[in-house]
Formats: sequence, structure tokens, C-alpha cells
Amino acid sequence: MGANANGSGHFARAVAAGMYAHDNAARSWGVEIAEIRPHYAVARMTVRDDMLNSHGVCHGAMLFALADTAFAYASNSENRATLANSCTITFTEAVPAGAVLTAVAEKRSRGRRTGVYDVTVTTGKGAVVALFRGNSYEVRGESAPGLAGPRDTSED
Amino acid sequence: MGANANGSGHFARAVAAGMYAHDNAARSWGVEIAEIRPHYAVARMTVRDDMLNSHGVCHGAMLFALADTAFAYASNSENRATLANSCTITFTEAVPAGAVLTAVAEKRSRGRRTGVYDVTVTTGKGAVVALFRGNSYEVRGESAPGLAGPRDTSED
Amino acid sequence: MGANANGSGHFARAVAAGMYAHDNAARSWGVEIAEIRPHYAVARMTVRDDMLNSHGVCHGAMLFALADTAFAYASNSENRATLANSCTITFTEAVPAGAVLTAVAEKRSRGRRTGVYDVTVTTGKGAVVALFRGNSYEVRGESAPGLAGPRDTSED
Amino acid sequence: MGANANGSGHFARAVAAGMYAHDNAARSWGVEIAEIRPHYAVARMTVRDDMLNSHGVCHGAMLFALADTAFAYASNSENRATLANSCTITFTEAVPAGAVLTAVAEKRSRGRRTGVYDVTVTTGKGAVVALFRGNSYEVRGESAPGLAGPRDTSED
Repeated sequence: MGANANGSGHFARAVAAGMYAHDNAARSWGVEIAEIRPHYAVARMTVRDDMLNSHGVCHGAMLFALADTAFAYASNSENRATLANSCTITFTEAVPAGAVLTAVAEKRSRGRRTGVYDVTVTTGKGAVVALFRGNSYEVRGESAPGLAGPRDTSED
Repeated sequence: MGANANGSGHFARAVAAGMYAHDNAARSWGVEIAEIRPHYAVARMTVRDDMLNSHGVCHGAMLFALADTAFAYASNSENRATLANSCTITFTEAVPAGAVLTAVAEKRSRGRRTGVYDVTVTTGKGAVVALFRGNSYEVRGESAPGLAGPRDTSED
Repeated sequence: MGANANGSGHFARAVAAGMYAHDNAARSWGVEIAEIRPHYAVARMTVRDDMLNSHGVCHGAMLFALADTAFAYASNSENRATLANSCTITFTEAVPAGAVLTAVAEKRSRGRRTGVYDVTVTTGKGAVVALFRGNSYEVRGESAPGLAGPRDTSED
Repeated sequence: MGANANGSGHFARAVAAGMYAHDNAARSWGVEIAEIRPHYAVARMTVRDDMLNSHGVCHGAMLFALADTAFAYASNSENRATLANSCTITFTEAVPAGAVLTAVAEKRSRGRRTGVYDVTVTTGKGAVVALFRGNSYEVRGESAPGLAGPRDTSED
């Protein structure tokens, strides 16, 4: 069996679980981490009434919040503490209350310290509503401190 | 007296008040619009526990939320409906719970349809924690529908 | 035959040829448009000695130049005059003199007036050296003025 | 006398001179470094015919090139080798051939490894034509290798 791939998928999920337990913000927004693999994450969120702006549609910052969360879980999936350095987002369509949004984060590049991840935010109907790009920066430390390393999960 | 300048400052405040009354998101984050002038806005927010990420510091998306709100009020200050097209943010320092953040949004450019606004987010101690740049896009319609136009406020 | 598809591929190439004839900058950089389809373009450039920065590697602005050119041809491929509003680029690897670079531009989104295109710049060996994202803005007019419209090319 | 300030101004100019001697690209574009201080640079360039795009105006990439050069000299002014990680540019006005452009680069933030610099590009008439923001990343090494350090220039 593809032990390494399974192992690292298992490990990535353990990192995500460790992070999520302390991620007050993601939990307060109702963001769920639906899928996680090394350098890849899918996050979901339902647009609540308290997320609407003065035009009555989802505030752009909540689209950013969902995308940024997916970016954080994808870029920290190997338990090497990784921060957002700079992010850019383009809003392509208005999103009504009640919409269920999905953000898919994928690695585009990862060097020794810096990385780039793209996040696409879509509605249930598949419309792209925001395109996010995150530039990451790796620092010392673990993303989910105290978690056993990938090798220890090889029995998955 | 500087009727025009006062008038437009008064008008900008009326637009902001009209927007804020419907801005569920800004109110749910506890964001206050502390100051408003044409193409200029100051917004404030206190970092709550439900805004912290897994590292125990303010989630980057909440810095974005504050900055984006200041951008929205600055760019809509003349009651011409103006949306964010794309935004970029660089995070320069971690922010602890309880910090009182100030975002100052200023116009850098405004053409016929597009504009650029810079927002600087600082703590009470003056440390810059995030630098945001918003590219705006003007659409048809009013920011605060039904509000009397600037000319009608000249008796301010 | 797939008249529309062929027709628009043919038409996109005609637009590109019309643009390229007047594109002093692209020609002075030695940029070639290697492939063109609706909302898709591939551009190539060899890194010359006069493109090196003080570190002796390709100046980032020349990576931008190649990517921006691919973006321009992709976003103008339907002969609707389209400008760059804002662009972002992340540099992921240094590029030596003599490298042959390829930029592939693809549409991520296109609305009534605004659009988003991603451009990936790679070396001959497949290494990603820059990731570019362009936010476009459509204005009145044609990209290659005077060109016959798509329907007139149906005999291709 | 303000030894430190003078010294570092003198030193920044020496770094710039050391860089410029090897900066083939900047010289090929006719970019001049008009002013240099720690974390601040002014660069100038005249728009030549070989810099025009298919619309007959200055190619956006040449505005980027000028801005990026100013950014490089400002961010390397203390002789600590500093690279562009990601950059964003917004184009605000078309620039005709023959225009003399000025780019002013200023530090907005500089941490242990990362920094942010803003560059404003204007014409002789003062119109803002492009707004550039550069996120820098410090690596090991000197910007102008072999240059004596700041302390050795204190007799300036």
C-alpha cells in the first residue's frame, strides 16, 4: 500500500485536528475543514445573516476568512509552523445569505522558507465567487505543538 | 465658512450612517466607524477571544475585516456604490487578544470607474500590524440608497 | 467541422497578430506569442544579458514583462479592448542568463467588465519561477482595431 | 554633525553605486537612481518608443520595471541582500511616449526578514500613473558584495 502517501494524509489530518481545536476564529465562523492532504485543504462555511454587508450580500472579508483558513490548513499540513506573509483576493460574484461556500486550497510553490497557495471559493452551484492567493512564510516551531511526527503515524 | 468641505464631510457621515445601519458584519465584529470624510475613514475594533487563530493571536482575516471595512466606508463616502474588486494585505506583526486596533483608509487614486485606497492597521501603541491596499470598482447605484444628495446638506 | 471553435481560435490568432504588429515592447524583449486561443496564451522569451540585475540573474521585471504580455494576449483574445487594472507576481526561483522561459496565461474568471487571469512562468526544465495574477478591466473599443469580427472568419 | 544620518546616507549611495554597476537591466532601460537614502530611493526613466505596447502607450511592464528598480535600491540600501518576494501594481493612467517618469520608493515596514515598500510612479506633471507595493525578503549576503560596512564611512 502507498504507506507514505497514506501516512502523510493521516498526519496532515492530525495536524489539522490539533490546529482546529485552538482555532477560535474558524469555529466562530462555522468553518469546517472538510478535507485535508499535504499542502491541500478544503474548507466549508454557510453564509449567516451576521456575515452580510450593507448591500445585503456576504461581506468580502468573510470570503477572505474562509479562503485564508483553507490556506492556513494547507500550508501547515506538514506541521512546520507557516504564516501568511501577504494575501491577495479578487471578488468575482456577490454571494447571498444562506449560500454554502467551499474553498479549495492548493500549493503552487513551496521553497525553503516561502510558498504560494491558491484558493478558489465556489458556491454549491459551482460559481466562482472569489480567487485568493496566499504567500506563506515558514518560521521555527510546529503548527500543532507536541504532535507526534509523520514517521510515528506509519501504522495508519 | 467652508460650506463645501463641511457639507461633504457631513454628507460622508450621513452615507456612513446609512451604510452602517445595514452592515451586519461590521456590527457583529464590533467595528466602529470613528471618523469619516470624503475618501477617508477610520475604523476601530477590539480583538476578542473569538477572533483568535490556533496560535492564540488575532486571525489575519479579522485584520482584513477591519481594513476592508475602512476601505468600504472611504470608497463609498460620496454615495456612489463602489465595490472591492481586488485587495491585498501584508501582515507585519502578530496581534494579541484585547488589542484595540485602528484602521485608517485613504484614497491613493480614483478614476472614472476604478480607484485605489490604502489602509494601515495599527495597535494602540502605534505598531503597524497590517498594510492593506484595495482596488475599487464603481457600479451604478447609491451606497446608502435613498439618502439625499450632497447639495441638500448645504445648510449643515 | 467545429466552426465556432476553429473560428474563434483563428480569430484569436488574428487579434494577436494585429496586436503584435504594434507591440514594440514585446518585440524589443524578444517575446514570441507561441500559442493563442480564446482567453489563453503562451508566450516565450530567452533571458538576455541586458535583462540581468545586479545579482547576475534575470531581473524580476522581465519575468513580469513576459507574464504581463501573455496576460494581455489572453485577455484581449476576443478583440474587446481589455486593460490590466492590477497585477500581482510572486517570484519563486532565480533565473540565469540564457534560460528560455515560457509563460502560460489562462482565464480564471471573466465577468461583464472585470476578469482574472493566472500566468505561470516556467523554465525549459519545468521549474516554476514566477506566479502572476492579472485583474483585467474591459473598456470600449477593439484590441486590434479594424479587424473583421469572428463571424467573418468562418471560412477559415 | 549628524554623523550617523550622513554616514548612512553616504553608505546607501555607495551600495546603490555598487549595485548599479552590475545592473544591466536598469541601465538598458535608461533608469537612473536620482536619490537614495536608507530605505528610500527615487528612480527616473524616460518612456522610449521601444517601451510602447500595442495601444501606443507605455507598456505596464515598463512601469513595473521602474517601480521594481526603485524598490530594489530602497530595500537593499543597508547592504543586506534583499529580494522581492511578491509585488503588486495598479495602473491608474496611460502614459505616452516621451514622458519622464519618477518612482519614489519608501519603506512601510521592515521586520527581521520581511519588509514592505510602497512605490508611487508619477509623470513630470505630477499625475500618478502606477501604485506599486513590494514585499521583500532578506537573505544572507551583501547587496553590493565587498563594500566596506557603514561604520567605515563615518568620516564622510
